[in-house]
Amino acid sequence: MSNKIIPQGKYIPASRAGKLIYTAGMTPRVNGQLIMVGPVEADKPLETYREALRQSAENALNAARNALEEGESLDKIVNMLVFLNTSEDFTSHAKIADFASEYLVEQLGQAGVGSRTAIGVKTLPGNCPCEIQLIAMAK
Amino acid sequence: MSNKIIPQGKYIPASRAGKLIYTAGMTPRVNGQLIMVGPVEADKPLETYREALRQSAENALNAARNALEEGESLDKIVNMLVFLNTSEDFTSHAKIADFASEYLVEQLGQAGVGSRTAIGVKTLPGNCPCEIQLIAMAK
Amino acid sequence: MSNKIIPQGKYIPASRAGKLIYTAGMTPRVNGQLIMVGPVEADKPLETYREALRQSAENALNAARNALEEGESLDKIVNMLVFLNTSEDFTSHAKIADFASEYLVEQLGQAGVGSRTAIGVKTLPGNCPCEIQLIAMAK
Repeated sequence: MSNKIIPQGKYIPASRAGKLIYTAGMTPRVNGQLIMVGPVEADKPLETYREALRQSAENALNAARNALEEGESLDKIVNMLVFLNTSEDFTSHAKIADFASEYLVEQLGQAGVGSRTAIGVKTLPGNCPCEIQLIAMAK
Repeated sequence: MSNKIIPQGKYIPASRAGKLIYTAGMTPRVNGQLIMVGPVEADKPLETYREALRQSAENALNAARNALEEGESLDKIVNMLVFLNTSEDFTSHAKIADFASEYLVEQLGQAGVGSRTAIGVKTLPGNCPCEIQLIAMAK
Repeated sequence: MSNKIIPQGKYIPASRAGKLIYTAGMTPRVNGQLIMVGPVEADKPLETYREALRQSAENALNAARNALEEGESLDKIVNMLVFLNTSEDFTSHAKIADFASEYLVEQLGQAGVGSRTAIGVKTLPGNCPCEIQLIAMAK
């Protein structure tokens, strides 16, 4: 699947600090277009948001991989910040964030399992449902 | 006090990147149960939220300590992210976050004093009032 | 311009983990006073918020520089977290965060360009419009 990550404005998709890689916050875009718009709502099935979370995680993982230098590979995911654009009464942050974690485990196995923080925010770019930032380590 | 931290979903309570330790976002749970539910409200005494903040900080500190390897100890707290589930008109983020900082200073002395960011979010897991992520350093 | 950054409560403006510098979340204050109060609103010109974003970025950059040791200089900005206190219908996070990025590029050139995450939160300290945390690297 072609999925170019286009830097928006004056920042880069991922930056390095030694072996550490910090990605930008990634929204669920494919070829620059959001695949879902609107908040994560408490009264909808959790499954509704699976693809959006996976796409944000994929974009963040791609950004991390693109920051690898010649001869390096990804050692592991260190940390994931999951920002969810939620309705007022939403409380199942962990279950929604699990969709992103599952993607990372599919891609990286146990190396995809880092620490994680998931919070419900008020607004996200383009009214998208989720934004994900990864900290990864190169080896 | 017994206070098991149970990883929920596909993540771990803390991960390592060399000497750096990144904890997951920790809510005010004791034995898996939230000790407080509901937002931080502007018209209640600040003291109302002291225990919840301390418990989140304790859980995050425990997670960081559990990530130490044989023979290591905690060098210091580098950074603390304090996410507060607030009412619309809440503005005293620093005073509430101070409860968490005070706990870290009680436990670690000057090594408990790092940089800190406190923000008011829309929703948190289980409608709890606070979630805390630490970055610590091992020595 | 005199712009003392006064640590509030039990934390410091920036902390070190080796060559990495983590600043505290910085609000748009000059001499301890917020230069703007109120949320970022969707129906106002983006320009309205330029100075607030620049001031937060300046305070965070100053905090990072103050954490340099004798003989060190700032290598680069690694990551910027931009927390915006937004109205419900706000969607232009990247455009507002660009004001902060522009400031960093003016100050540091290409070294001011790191990865970036911008989200819309519910409340910020003192009802200010923005809070910025930097991760920088010393050389």
